[in-house]
Amino acid sequence: MAKITIIGAGAMGSALVMPLTRNGNEVRLWGSPLDDEIIDALKAGENHPKHKFPLLKDVKTFYSTQMKEAIDGADIVIMAITSDALGDVFEQVVLYLQPGMIVGSVTKGFNSDHNGNIVLLPEILKERVPEVLKDKIPFVFVAGPCKAIEVLWEVPTSVTYASTNIEAAKSMQKAAMTNVYRVDVTTDVISTELCAAMKNAYCVGLGMAEGFFKREKGYLHKNTKGALFTFALSEMAILATALGGTLAPVYGLPGAGDLELTGEAGRNRMLGEAIGSGLSASQAIAKMKDEGITVEGYPAINFGYLVAKELAKQGKLQIERLPLLKGLYEILYEDAPAYKSVELLLQECTGAYS
Amino acid sequence: MAKITIIGAGAMGSALVMPLTRNGNEVRLWGSPLDDEIIDALKAGENHPKHKFPLLKDVKTFYSTQMKEAIDGADIVIMAITSDALGDVFEQVVLYLQPGMIVGSVTKGFNSDHNGNIVLLPEILKERVPEVLKDKIPFVFVAGPCKAIEVLWEVPTSVTYASTNIEAAKSMQKAAMTNVYRVDVTTDVISTELCAAMKNAYCVGLGMAEGFFKREKGYLHKNTKGALFTFALSEMAILATALGGTLAPVYGLPGAGDLELTGEAGRNRMLGEAIGSGLSASQAIAKMKDEGITVEGYPAINFGYLVAKELAKQGKLQIERLPLLKGLYEILYEDAPAYKSVELLLQECTGAYS
Repeated sequence: MAKITIIGAGAMGSALVMPLTRNGNEVRLWGSPLDDEIIDALKAGENHPKHKFPLLKDVKTFYSTQMKEAIDGADIVIMAITSDALGDVFEQVVLYLQPGMIVGSVTKGFNSDHNGNIVLLPEILKERVPEVLKDKIPFVFVAGPCKAIEVLWEVPTSVTYASTNIEAAKSMQKAAMTNVYRVDVTTDVISTELCAAMKNAYCVGLGMAEGFFKREKGYLHKNTKGALFTFALSEMAILATALGGTLAPVYGLPGAGDLELTGEAGRNRMLGEAIGSGLSASQAIAKMKDEGITVEGYPAINFGYLVAKELAKQGKLQIERLPLLKGLYEILYEDAPAYKSVELLLQECTGAYS
Repeated sequence: MAKITIIGAGAMGSALVMPLTRNGNEVRLWGSPLDDEIIDALKAGENHPKHKFPLLKDVKTFYSTQMKEAIDGADIVIMAITSDALGDVFEQVVLYLQPGMIVGSVTKGFNSDHNGNIVLLPEILKERVPEVLKDKIPFVFVAGPCKAIEVLWEVPTSVTYASTNIEAAKSMQKAAMTNVYRVDVTTDVISTELCAAMKNAYCVGLGMAEGFFKREKGYLHKNTKGALFTFALSEMAILATALGGTLAPVYGLPGAGDLELTGEAGRNRMLGEAIGSGLSASQAIAKMKDEGITVEGYPAINFGYLVAKELAKQGKLQIERLPLLKGLYEILYEDAPAYKSVELLLQECTGAYS
């Protein structure tokens, strides 16, 4: 049994309450300043406002002003904050960390580090660790096909915990793994996090193939989606290895598994569908912005392409080997026509990776 | 420009008429004894009865009695016959083959060879080549995410042509590839065909995850599907390499790509959904048999498991490394309860392949 603090009471943070509590851990859920209503509802014994589903009663809830109490004495602190706010919140969290505490993170994506470089989120966390704690806080990153609500429903789920400190990954695995929430471990953080970020980007392409159905002729484009799925995997493999990662996570739960899940439904796919059905990217993004919908895949395409160009500059990959990412960038950021671009893409991609 | 004879006027055979004709080849479509109505309709200028879609007018159609005329002078003969009838029809075809003719095949699956061993379809074809033509007939096998009707619709599609004779694969690629029907080539026939056969088997498992939604609580099981998808890929990799194949087709169009497509819709998924929603496997299979629906994934699970056990006997793999295939066998052939079995499966599979 461990004491575990979850930082962020949104969808994924609160879902983790389920397996962690089932395993008999002491679980604390800290709400960010944006989560006040969630904490209010939970304290009142109501359903979680996002999931419309109750959390297990044993969880202790904390308001944003109570971070010190929430973290005090914890064995594991799990960051479950949106990617853009992750650095800011972690700057507060480090104030309360003690040597040997494990920091987990379920947040995925890219962001700018202190030097203005686009990096994967592990870097955003690491650069905020004070000198006195350096190498004393192991990080564990969570990836794989996992919709939060299904964790609450206790649907059979398999995820990957990645850490360069395998003992830390195993400790968190031991704390979280139940009969239905299964956890694999890996030391390949780079490849795991690259996939976690890029699957959102590539999923926008899968969504376009779904959207083509809504064009004039009404033809399904499942062949196109299957091909784009394959090429997305191939490009994640190129990106992951150029960054120094291995192939196993790409073809495992963080890559293939999560891309499959993400291609089934969700906001990234929805953006792609809107574009595939005929809206220009600017129209589709403006529309989703109006509706208050944030789409992680949209910045991920830009950030992923910037990272790729930087890797190309360093001689670590050839940018021509990423025709799908380039095409997605042109569609999303230069309003290239989606259907024609995808047709051309498939011409380029077929045979490009072998 | 080449002369190309398609043997079998069913869904995939007749769909290939589209890219082959668009490329200016002389295309001949031979109907099996079961295809008489199809040939009648095409000769009358009507839609293809299966696709409800017209074929290009230039195609020459032949009844089953006209095989000699259909094959006479052909450069490429493409087998598009159901897997159970493939051997019998090919025994007729070889009577008309000339040295140097390329034989393509779009049929996928397993069958018994002359010694009673379960083998992939390339073996079924090869053992029927007369001595005098041995090594003079190169074979090319087609795989990848490709629904026939979408080829007729000219939806952007990417497939793989596999041949131990790369020049033959390239000849057929040259004959068939258009702006929208894209063709990659590989020399890895084993891995390509293993994936082509086994993706149907594993798709039944993906269908179960979809079917769980229809159980009492009405919970989606997309996490489960994403995990099963990943583990299916891992097991196809184990099977393909044990047979002597490489990993590229597994993570390429024949494996990952076609598994993604097959998991979207179709009869294999439908069988899985029926079982997932609560029917026993025997009930679900009996029901589909009553409705005249053949499900390739059902025998593929049995054949695949037999092949795996034979490989294990030969020391080429450990059967314990295939918990998903074993579980699917138990559900489909021993009426093991699907939900409980999948839950146990995921426990075993998570971490089993790394």
